[in-house]
Amino acid sequence: MNENRIHNFNAGPAALPLSVLEEIRDSFLNYKGCGMSVTEISHRSTLFDEIINDAVERTKRLLKLDDKYHVLFLQGGASMQFALIPMNFLADGKSADYVNTGTWSTKAIKEAQIQGKSINVVASSEDKKFSYIPKNIQFNEDAAYVHIASNNTIKGTQWASFPDTKGVPIVADMSSDMMSRPLDVEKFGLIYAGAQKNIGPAGVCMVIIRDDMLKKVPENLPTMMKYTTYASKNSMYNTPPCFAIYVLQLVMKWLEETIGGLDKMEALNLEKGRFLYDFIDSSDYYRATAEPDSRSLMNVTFRLPSEELEKQFILEAGKNGLGGLKGHRSVGGCRASIYNATSLEAVKALTDFMKTFEKENG
Amino acid sequence: MNENRIHNFNAGPAALPLSVLEEIRDSFLNYKGCGMSVTEISHRSTLFDEIINDAVERTKRLLKLDDKYHVLFLQGGASMQFALIPMNFLADGKSADYVNTGTWSTKAIKEAQIQGKSINVVASSEDKKFSYIPKNIQFNEDAAYVHIASNNTIKGTQWASFPDTKGVPIVADMSSDMMSRPLDVEKFGLIYAGAQKNIGPAGVCMVIIRDDMLKKVPENLPTMMKYTTYASKNSMYNTPPCFAIYVLQLVMKWLEETIGGLDKMEALNLEKGRFLYDFIDSSDYYRATAEPDSRSLMNVTFRLPSEELEKQFILEAGKNGLGGLKGHRSVGGCRASIYNATSLEAVKALTDFMKTFEKENG
Repeated sequence: MNENRIHNFNAGPAALPLSVLEEIRDSFLNYKGCGMSVTEISHRSTLFDEIINDAVERTKRLLKLDDKYHVLFLQGGASMQFALIPMNFLADGKSADYVNTGTWSTKAIKEAQIQGKSINVVASSEDKKFSYIPKNIQFNEDAAYVHIASNNTIKGTQWASFPDTKGVPIVADMSSDMMSRPLDVEKFGLIYAGAQKNIGPAGVCMVIIRDDMLKKVPENLPTMMKYTTYASKNSMYNTPPCFAIYVLQLVMKWLEETIGGLDKMEALNLEKGRFLYDFIDSSDYYRATAEPDSRSLMNVTFRLPSEELEKQFILEAGKNGLGGLKGHRSVGGCRASIYNATSLEAVKALTDFMKTFEKENG
Repeated sequence: MNENRIHNFNAGPAALPLSVLEEIRDSFLNYKGCGMSVTEISHRSTLFDEIINDAVERTKRLLKLDDKYHVLFLQGGASMQFALIPMNFLADGKSADYVNTGTWSTKAIKEAQIQGKSINVVASSEDKKFSYIPKNIQFNEDAAYVHIASNNTIKGTQWASFPDTKGVPIVADMSSDMMSRPLDVEKFGLIYAGAQKNIGPAGVCMVIIRDDMLKKVPENLPTMMKYTTYASKNSMYNTPPCFAIYVLQLVMKWLEETIGGLDKMEALNLEKGRFLYDFIDSSDYYRATAEPDSRSLMNVTFRLPSEELEKQFILEAGKNGLGGLKGHRSVGGCRASIYNATSLEAVKALTDFMKTFEKENG
C-alpha cells in the first residue's frame, strides 16, 4: 500500500485506480503544460474537447457500441435519471414495465408514479427481502421500455444475464456494475450509471442511449431534462461537470490500456468474487445473504453470528487497514464492495483478516 | 508564476486560488490521513460531513445569513435552475417578473415559457445589445418572485445595486459574481450560482433559499427537482458531487482566512476593475463595450479597432502567458474575466501587454 493508503471496500464513492489518482495529482497544477489546472480550463477549449471525446470514444470501444448509440454525461446521479426516464419516454397512453429488485428499483418506480405515469411492476423479489433476481418474467409486449437495475448495491444481487424482452428496449440502471463485464448492448435502449462506483468519482452520470429512444423524446420538455439536448451538444449544452468527466476518461483509459478491456476486467472480477464467496461458503461463521445464483460480483453482502460481532468486525477491520465494510444502514450486516479498482490483493487481505477474526472471536 | 502557470482570464471554468489547488494536490492520494483520496471517501462518512458542513457554515458566515436561509448544493448548473425555479414557485395562478439583461436571463425566461408558466418580462436591455442594466423598473406587486441575473458574463454588465421590489422576493442568478462582494441578502428569496466562476469548479451549483420559498414548493414534484429534498437532507438525498463541494469548501476557507471576508474581497475586486477600466478609458485604442454605470467588475468586455487586430491580440496574449481573453462566441471581441481568484498582478500583466500591443500595432 502506497502512502499509507488503505484497502477501500466502500460502496460508492469508491476506490479508484491508484495510477489514475497519481496522474491527476501529478498534473493538477498544470494540465498538459497549459499553465492551468484541469479544473480551470474552459469546457469550450480544445483541451477539454479532447478529454470528453476520448471518454466517449473509449466507452464506445470498451462496450463495442455502434453509431446507433450515444454516450452522454449528465448530472444529478441515477436518482435524476429515475425522473427523467418516464418524463422522456412515457407520453400519454404509453406504459412501461419495471422489475423491482431492491432499494434503487423501488425509487425508480416511485419517481414514475410521482409523475402520474403508467407503469407495471411485472416482477419483484420483495417477498424474500430482495435476496434474489426474479426469473421467467412475463413482460408486456407493448411496453415503452423495461426498467431494471443490473446490480443491487444494497442487497448484493446482480443479474447474471439479461432477460429476453421480445424487442422491448431494456432501460438499465448499471450504476454499480457498469464496465465490470462485457455487455450484449443490443438489448438496451438506455443504460445509465452514476460514476462513483466503477467508472469515476461522484458528480457525473454516464448515459448510453440508442437512436430510437432519442426519437421518442418530446420537444416541449425543459431543456436540461431531455436527452436530445445532451445528444445534440456532445453533453455540453451548458458547462458539464468537467473534473468528473476527466477522471472518468482516465478510468476508461486504465480499463483499456492497463486492464486490457472488459473481457479481462470480467475475468479479474470473477476471480475476486469467487475467492471471497468461496471463503464465505467454506465458513460456518460468515454467511452470504444473497441467493447463490443471484450473487453480485460487485457487492458481497454477508453476516456474522451476531450484530455485536459485526460491529466489532467492522471496527477491527478499520484498524487493520480495511475500510468501508459496513452494510447499508437500511439492512445492516457487512458488505465488501469489490469494484473494478479493488484488487485481488485487497480481497486476500480481507479474507486473511476474516480468518483471524473468526479465530479470535469464533 | 509558479510551475509555469499562466494568468487565467477564462470566463468559467476559471482561475482558482493557487493555494487551494496546492492543498488539493498535496492531499489527493490520502485525505486527512484516512488512507483514501477525497474522491474515494463515502458521502456518508464523518469526513465528508465535515466538508459539506464547513462549506455551509463558511457560506453563512461570509454572507451573514441567518437561520431563515439554507445553503444547498445541486447539480446541473444554473441552466437546471432556470427550469426548477418556475417548476417550484409558479403553481397555477401564480406569475413572476423577469428582467432580461442578456443571454442567461433570456434562457431563464425561455425555460419558464417552455413549461407554460405565466411570466412577465418587466424590463429588458435588448434594445442596446444588453450593454446596460435597466433602471426604474415597475414590478408587479403580486409577482411570486422577480428574476434577475446579477452579473452578465457575456455582455460584461452587472447590477451595481439591487432594485426595491416592494417585498417581492428576488431570485437571482449570481453564477458570475457570487461571493465577489457583500450582499444585502434580505431582498433575496433564492440565490443560485454555478460554482465554476467565483466559488469552485464546474459540477456544483450553490443555492441559497429562504424558508418562505421552501414552503411554496409543491409536494408532488419529482424528488430530485424540488428544493425541499435538498433542504431536508443537507443536500445528500443521493450522492452529491463530492469533489466539487470539497473544492468549494476550500475556496470558502480561502475567502474567510486568506482574503478576510467579502468586504476585503470587494475592495480587491474594485481595485482590479478600476485599474483595468481606467486603463481602457485612457486609451483611444481599446474601447469598453458596457455602459459605464453598468460595467461588470467580473467580466471586462472590450474591443480593439478591428476584428483582425482582436484575433492577433488574443493570439499574442496567449503567447505571453495571458489566457482566456477571447470574447464569448456570440458577441466576439475581447473579455478579461477577473474573478476573485485573479490577482491584481495578473491585471497589471494584462495592461502592460495591452500597452505594448497598442505600441506595436497602433
